Parts: sequence; C-alpha cells; structure tokens
Amino acid sequence: MFLSLSVCCISTRWYKQMGREKVSLLIRGAKVFNTYLKRFREADVAVVNDRFYYIDIMQKTEFEAERTIDAHGQYMIPGLVDIHMHIESSMMTPGAFAQCLAANGVTTIVSEPHEMANVKGMRGIREMIRAGSKAPVDIFYGIPSSVPSTDETLETTGGRIDYEDMKELLAYPEVVCVGEVMNYRGVIQAGSQLEINRFLSYVREKYPFFPVEGHCPKLMDLELAKFLSLGINADHTEHTLEEIRQRMENGMFLEIQQKMLGRELFDYIRDNHLYEHCAFVTDDTMADVLWKKGQLNYVVSEAVTLGFPLEEAVYCATYTPCRRMHLDDRGAIAPGKLADFQLMRRPESFRPERVFKRGREIFPAPQTGEEVETYRFPADFYQSVQVGKVTPEFFRIAVPEHSGEVQVRVIEVEPSGTQTRLKPVTMRVRDGYLDWKDSGCLLAVVLERHGKNETAGFGFLTGSCHTRGTLASTYMHDHHNLMVAGDDVSDMAFAVNRIRKMQGGCLAVYQGEILAELALPVCGLLSDRPVAEIGAGLALVRKAMERLGYRHENPVMSFACLGLPVSPAWKLTNLGLVSVQEGKRKSLIIEKGGNES
Amino acid sequence: MFLSLSVCCISTRWYKQMGREKVSLLIRGAKVFNTYLKRFREADVAVVNDRFYYIDIMQKTEFEAERTIDAHGQYMIPGLVDIHMHIESSMMTPGAFAQCLAANGVTTIVSEPHEMANVKGMRGIREMIRAGSKAPVDIFYGIPSSVPSTDETLETTGGRIDYEDMKELLAYPEVVCVGEVMNYRGVIQAGSQLEINRFLSYVREKYPFFPVEGHCPKLMDLELAKFLSLGINADHTEHTLEEIRQRMENGMFLEIQQKMLGRELFDYIRDNHLYEHCAFVTDDTMADVLWKKGQLNYVVSEAVTLGFPLEEAVYCATYTPCRRMHLDDRGAIAPGKLADFQLMRRPESFRPERVFKRGREIFPAPQTGEEVETYRFPADFYQSVQVGKVTPEFFRIAVPEHSGEVQVRVIEVEPSGTQTRLKPVTMRVRDGYLDWKDSGCLLAVVLERHGKNETAGFGFLTGSCHTRGTLASTYMHDHHNLMVAGDDVSDMAFAVNRIRKMQGGCLAVYQGEILAELALPVCGLLSDRPVAEIGAGLALVRKAMERLGYRHENPVMSFACLGLPVSPAWKLTNLGLVSVQEGKRKSLIIEKGGNES
Repeated sequence: MFLSLSVCCISTRWYKQMGREKVSLLIRGAKVFNTYLKRFREADVAVVNDRFYYIDIMQKTEFEAERTIDAHGQYMIPGLVDIHMHIESSMMTPGAFAQCLAANGVTTIVSEPHEMANVKGMRGIREMIRAGSKAPVDIFYGIPSSVPSTDETLETTGGRIDYEDMKELLAYPEVVCVGEVMNYRGVIQAGSQLEINRFLSYVREKYPFFPVEGHCPKLMDLELAKFLSLGINADHTEHTLEEIRQRMENGMFLEIQQKMLGRELFDYIRDNHLYEHCAFVTDDTMADVLWKKGQLNYVVSEAVTLGFPLEEAVYCATYTPCRRMHLDDRGAIAPGKLADFQLMRRPESFRPERVFKRGREIFPAPQTGEEVETYRFPADFYQSVQVGKVTPEFFRIAVPEHSGEVQVRVIEVEPSGTQTRLKPVTMRVRDGYLDWKDSGCLLAVVLERHGKNETAGFGFLTGSCHTRGTLASTYMHDHHNLMVAGDDVSDMAFAVNRIRKMQGGCLAVYQGEILAELALPVCGLLSDRPVAEIGAGLALVRKAMERLGYRHENPVMSFACLGLPVSPAWKLTNLGLVSVQEGKRKSLIIEKGGNES
Repeated sequence: MFLSLSVCCISTRWYKQMGREKVSLLIRGAKVFNTYLKRFREADVAVVNDRFYYIDIMQKTEFEAERTIDAHGQYMIPGLVDIHMHIESSMMTPGAFAQCLAANGVTTIVSEPHEMANVKGMRGIREMIRAGSKAPVDIFYGIPSSVPSTDETLETTGGRIDYEDMKELLAYPEVVCVGEVMNYRGVIQAGSQLEINRFLSYVREKYPFFPVEGHCPKLMDLELAKFLSLGINADHTEHTLEEIRQRMENGMFLEIQQKMLGRELFDYIRDNHLYEHCAFVTDDTMADVLWKKGQLNYVVSEAVTLGFPLEEAVYCATYTPCRRMHLDDRGAIAPGKLADFQLMRRPESFRPERVFKRGREIFPAPQTGEEVETYRFPADFYQSVQVGKVTPEFFRIAVPEHSGEVQVRVIEVEPSGTQTRLKPVTMRVRDGYLDWKDSGCLLAVVLERHGKNETAGFGFLTGSCHTRGTLASTYMHDHHNLMVAGDDVSDMAFAVNRIRKMQGGCLAVYQGEILAELALPVCGLLSDRPVAEIGAGLALVRKAMERLGYRHENPVMSFACLGLPVSPAWKLTNLGLVSVQEGKRKSLIIEKGGNES
C-alpha cells in the first residue's frame, strides 16, 4: 500500500513522551552475536517474558528490569539447535538428556525416535514426546520413516510405523519433518509400491513445504537427482568432496556431523559462500561422549578448531538449522525471537557458563533437576524383555541330519564400520549337536524379546569381535531384540537371565563374573539415570569389551549393529542368519553343493 | 544412523544396468542459473511431469524426452516470485493479471486482497481465490489484517475482516502469511486491546512460524524493536540507509520495491553479505505500468541497471522470496523443485522469450488465453455501485444558520505523496447555500455506494489537484466509495450517473463531455479485460487528469487516496471531513472562535 511516509510522521512524534522501559531481564555489556552481520557487537539486551525485546547497541536506553546481569567481558550467542539426532543413541530418557543439552548450551533439537518406535510403535513415539514435553529445552520430532528397517520375514520388532501412522504424526504440533529416509536404494527404484514412497507422495501433495531428511551415502549423479526428486532434501552422511559438491549444488541441505569435519569441506563451503545451506548436527551421541565431551557444542568447537570460522560456526549451529526446519521464532538474538541464549568467556570453546531458555535460566539451575526423574513411562515399558529363563542347554544346536564335519556360515566382524563378511568355517558334529568349541568362533544368539513369537536366531561370530567371554545387549539396531554372544554357554545363560532380571541393558561376563553392566530398563533402550551415571557405565562396558578382545574403533556400535539387516553383508536376527544383499535368510549349515562365492 | 557407507555400495552397483531415461521435457544447452553457487553453467535440464528431474552439467546422459528444446545461447532462470503485492492495484481480475505475470516471467505471487475485502469482506477474498485458482501461475494469499483501515465512525466499507475471519483464513491452504500490519502506531501502543494485536498473539501461539508482513516507515530504535517483538518480521516501505540498517540487523526481512532502488542500499547489502535477507517485490503495480514496463521483472531489471549484481538479483527475485514464505518446493532449478522457469537471450533484461510453469509452457501460449475470461464473479459483484441517480441540485450545500461569509475547511492537495493539509478558505453564503464557485476550490463529494447507509460526505479541494473539469472514481482507498470532484455540478451529476451506469470505474469529464473513462465493473475495483485495454484506458485517464490541471507525480494514486482516513492529514469519506491526526470528523464550516492552528 502507498502513503507510508506520511502515516509515520505522526507515530514518531507520538513517541517522544515515553518513560523507562519495564523489562523482565537485562543482559548488560555482553559481546552479542549478530546473526545477520555475522559479527559480535557490545550491546545491552532486554528480554520481556520469553522473547528478546530490544538489542540496544547504543546502550543508552533506561530500563527498569526485574533482573539485571552484568555480562561485560562475556560473549552472548543464541542457544544451539541440533536438527538431526536421535535421543535414544544416548540411552537417556528425554528429560535427563535435556538436562545435558542445557548444560551444553543446546536449547532446541529435532529428534527422530525410531529406536523407541521399533520397540513400542506409535505408543513409543507418543511416550517420548510426553517424556520430553516438560524438558527445559524444546524438543521437536521427525517422523520415523523406516520402522521396521526391513520386514517381518527378516526381523521381529515390537512395533511398526505404517502409512497411516506417519500421516497421523504429520499433524502433531511437535513434528517438524520427515525423519531420514534410509532405504534410498529402494525408494529410487520402487516407484509407488513402497509404503514410504506412497507417504512421500502424500507429503508432497498435502504438506508441499515439509522438510524431508535423507540418508544417501555415496549416491551420485542421476541416482542422487532421483532421490532429490522425491522431495528428500537433506543429507547428513559421510562424503567425498565430489559427493558434497553434487549435494549442495543440487539444493540438498548439508548436515555436518563430526566425522565429516575437515579442511577440504570447509574450504569448499567458504569459497562458494555456502554457509546458508548447511548446519551442524550430531546424529548419534553416546552417553560417555556426551558426558565427557558434550553434544552439538562439541561438534561445533571441533569444527572451529579445525578452521571453520567462529562467526560462521555460530550461524550454522543456530540460524541455518532453524531456517531448515522453519523454526523462524528462534535462532538469533533479535527482537521477537525466543530468548534462547548462552553466555561464555571463550566463545570458541562453546562451553557456556550460563544458559537461558525462553528467558529463563536453565544452566546452571539445580531446581530444574527435579524434572528429570518425574516422568514415569507406562508399566509395560519397564517390562519389555519378555524372554523365559534359559539354561546352558538352550544354546545347544541340534543337527540330527548331519554327522562328521559340516561347513558353517560364520559372520566375520571387521575392525571398523558396521560391515561384516561371510566366512565358511568347518565344525565337527558330535552326538547330533554342533561342536563349535575349538572352531575359533563365538556362538551368537538373538532372542525375540517383544513377546511376539519367542523365536531365537543362532549364528557364529569371528574376526574383530571379542575373543573370549560373553557380551549381551537389548540395544540392537533396529529390532532391539536380545543378542548374546560368547564362548561359554553357562556365561551366556547367565547373561541372558541377568538382562532378563534387569529388564534390559548390556553387560560383559567372563567366567561367571560380571565385568561391567548398564541397565536400560525403559524398553531395553534407555535409562532414566543422569548422564554421569550412564556415561560412566557405558565407558566401563566399552572397556570390558576391549579387555575381552573386541578390536574395533567403536565396539559398542559394532556389537549393536550385528543384528541390523540393512547393514551389509551378513547379520543375525531373531529369525536367523540374514544375507543383506539377497535380502533373505540363509541356513547356518552350508548344504553340500551350496556355493558361497 | 550409522552404517551409511556399506549400504550404498550395493545401491551404486545396482544401478549400472540402467537404460535411457524417459523424461517429459528436456532443455538442452542453456546457461542454467545455479541458485546455490549463484552462477550460470551450461547444462541439460530434464523435467518429469511438473518437477525438475536432473540438471546434467556433464551433458552426457541419454534421455528419451517427449519434448526437447534446444536452448543453446539462451539463459535459463527460475520463474520470478513476488511475495508482497496486491492484485487489485492493477485493476485486473486474477485470471487476466496472471496472464501478464506469465508474460513477464513471474510464476508465483503472494497477494493480499484487502481492496476486495473492503468491498465484499470474506466473500471478496474467497472470490479472488477462486478467480485465481485456474490461473497459469500460482497465487498465494496474505491475510488482510487492516479491513477497514479505521472504523465505522470515520468510513463505511462494504465488508470488514474481523478476528474470527482472520482465524478462518489462517487455515486456507493458499494463505501463507499475515498481510502487512498497517497500523504500526496502534499495535505498538495498544497492547492487546486492538483486534489485530489479539490476532497476532493467536498467530504466535498457534502458528509460531507463520510469516507476518509489516509496514513501518521511519520506525526506529525501541519502537522498531516493539514492532518486531509482535512477530512482525518484514518491511517493504521506503527508508533511509539508517532505517534499512536497523531493520536488517534486527532480523527484519527487507522487501525491496522500485522506489527503494539505489546505490547506497545496494552497497550496504553487498558489503554485509545480506542478500539472503532481502527480496524484490512490487507492492502495487498499476495497469499502465504493468502493460508498458512489466511487473517484478521490471523492478529487478531496474535494480540490475542501477548496479545490483545480476546473479544476486536473480537469487533475490526467486530463491529468497520463496524461503521467506516457506515455499520450499520452488525458487531454484534443482531436482525435485517445481519446473517453473524462463528462457531469455539477455538475462539482465528479464524479458523472457519462453516461460514454463510446472513444466508446462505458459508464455507464449495462446491457448491459456481462454482461462482469462472464464471466471464469472457472483452477480452482486457486478452490481456494487448502489447510489441513486443524482441531479445538479444534489450538490447544493445548505447552510441555513449562516449568512454573509464563512470560513470553510478545505483540503489542500500536495504535488507528491498522499499527504494533504488543511487550508481555511472564505466562502460566501447565498440564499442559505454555500456559494463556492469563485473560491478557487473544487467541490468534492463521497457517496456511500455499498448499500449500507446512503450517506454522502461533502468537502472542498484545492492545491495540486485538477483546476477545472470533473473527476470521479469508485477506486478510492480503502473504503472504495464513489468520489466525485469538480467545478461544475452538472458535470458532477453526469459523472456520478455515468459511473452508476458503468457500475464502477473512473472517468474525467469536461463541459458535459467524457475526456476518458475506465470501467471497473467488478466491485467497482476491477475489470476483466486484458492488460493492454486496461493499461491504455488508465493511461488516457491519467493524461486527462493532467490536461485538467492535476499537478502530481501520480495523479491517479493521489486522487485514489483523498478518501483514505489513515493517510494524513485531512481526508474526505462518505461520513464527511476527517482529521487523521485527531482520528475524528470535523464540520465543513469553521464555527466562530474555532481555531485552526
């Protein structure tokens, strides 16, 4: 409309009579990060209720503040925002996890609860949302789009998220995106048969502007374009520079996690001014890392250490992630935005001294500690390990139709990543049972624990996994059944019964003695203890695994993925040995004439 | 989630057997604008149905295309996006207007239909949406937040948009933002009393990420912060550099319209890399400008001529406006985005040779012409001028209680802008009637024409307005009642009756002869003729106004705002003379002792 100039003349005249401004909170003299200029400038920052009200760079306004903080010599930046992560990876409940976030200056996250969904389906998601609803930070959610990871012929999960469930989740106010589409091979080939493709078409039609997270390592050229054509427009997986280049130049939002940090990537982003098209994320942070190093703030400080410019790093950890998820009410220190911010002496450390959420101090803030314990999940969430007591006999493998020697399909674990290989091993048959004792292999068994079919899948491990002792866990991607692997059936029986007693968790046993254990009583995935406790517990388990000879960059992750039937090449589920490439189960014993190239 | 690398190895292997790619449309060899690199690169662009499918910069892929266009030597940029404008300013119906947009390479707009809302309320808005629904371009809408501009004590409108209406509009799929909040003086003072403030709180609570357009010329410092604090986060009004600086550095999205273009602004944006925080808009484009110069493409080409870098100009006319409005499915030539694009030989001209919307050619494209005429508004929209026939006697002003001479409040029109001043003028009283003939003033009368109260407001004009002849129009901001102003009551009666006969429009009459006229039969605001006809008609009216002595940079706009009671300082509505500062009506005659400082 016209006539701007005129109208205003009045209004400005009108104002000359204003007195002192009443505000809730006043931060005086901090070096305040300006997101738009990507610069720090000294200013007085006034907050009214939960919002920034005025950033006074002249520092001349007279305020009448309920509370004033002198922040001279301190740096003030917005709360960090992590838009691609999974709370369950921390094995913590949303409440306790949120306490950590607060301590690390992270005030908003977007979590995709697909582990809980695999155990409890929609109820699991709703409970996670409820559990986090009182958290001191804002927790938004992505729609788990791949639950289960395969289908009921390869694994038994406690819950599944189908087309109708995903549609229901779209309407939740806390839901801001479609969680990562994992099965990228399937989606770009399948057309509309796949449920996820049907859902993506539905999203495009009804929610055309809704962000969809992707997962497409190594995908290039035309295949990458096909993936993007489905409306999937972000990726957070590890890449070569050429892969990065193709993603960013085709409009894919880049989510930078720790393992991607590096000079080559930073130079490319700087040289092409691509800061607005990327953000830092954590994806998965295990409790001990969280405890010792931090969460998103750790990733960002590492980036800065490796040469990512500080101001751009703040921008890519606060503003760009919000814009990616349309969270336009936050991510900058500006009038009208939520007053989510932190104060620190050394900004490059990203170690806040004080953290505020919606104008309220949340760190340090003992009183909010209460909230951690308050949330009780439904009773059955604490009774999720439905396996019977087992005896050593349970682990005997009867092979009545065989005698003498047999060729057995053994999973060979590699020292890095989650990929495995198949290794045929010769084993003796004695009295109709497989005698694997001196085969150099460990027995591994996955017991269905969701009360669905009481199945158990038997297999063998060799390679970089532990060489002696027994490991067991209910934290097994993605079906999270109970896996136990060891060299002694008595220890294995003991381990299973112990986890049954704990109703979930992981432990290491050697000669009848527990070396380390971590209870995960909530759905066999989470503990509602504080991070120090869980982090310390997990660190001990990790150490014990190493003591038992597990040779891997991340043994906890390696073991947790031995049951994941979308991760090549051979895995074990409650339904048995799975050839991932073939997408089907295979017998343990190689029948005569069966070739294993 | 982990295990990225492994999974993909399969998928890439999987792909080696792919044959030729079937696509709908293939654009070969154009210099294609890459939004992310802000660079042109030669490429083959494949489209499948309504989306970009693959941007092949290697130009090696074998496609099997239904249609191929050789575009070597041409530049390919996305369709332009105008996120702040009002279709009614063109006096064209959405269908015909959309044809112009297509011809000018504009494929998406966000229009705020507050003129129609002032005449027909919610029905007017719904009809505009319906009228535009079959348009060759996408038309989104902003919620008119200031209808009427004041209240029923100062003006009578045909419709109003109240709190509940605005809430209803929020749910419309075509509605993407709250239209400009005009009354910025009111909103930052009133707190929650004002209906618009109540609505803004509601939006913040229920739609926290919804864009809210602003209108706050000259507002600075704390007052600007207060305006931003209400969640209003864009401005498109004219500014000094300091005003611009305060807006952008406080997170206000800057919408650059033609009158703002200039070196100083461009340098500031460039020096601070603020391109991502601004976009070009048109706000109001009159039919003759649209016809002769263009729409958003005209503004952008002007900007480039004045030194705005071409690549950044394309980016700020396509990508940033979409991001501002969350229209993430368009605004770039990238896989998965809507195939809205144009081809041209000279990009800096922004004069497209061919324009495509959702993969379909819309310009040149005669067949789409049909759509223009098809939409019929409801019958009463063509019968919106409800005034009775008038005779010259109607214009006599009886002042029984006066005799001799009286002091009359006369509106003095200025040669630029819309501001007016008060000028007391002495007039003679003869036989109980005001004799204004040789006072050097023109008589102006506003007749209520919405069938509400048959009121008529009488006043006088002097200054830069026309010096002889008669002007009349139903396009009068914002109430759009019928205003007639002239020096001869016979001509004035003739003009009113003529407009009554046309059921809306504007015309110039001199000594019983029509110098120029433009019929606006739809609600007295719009014509459903093509732009050439309306543009030519309006140009003639403009020329006629000048011939009658109207001395103003934009006489059409000046006259249309003489009745707008939010534009200082003195205006005339159907309820009489209005003092805008005082916000109340004043008598025509200054009573003895009444002072007029």
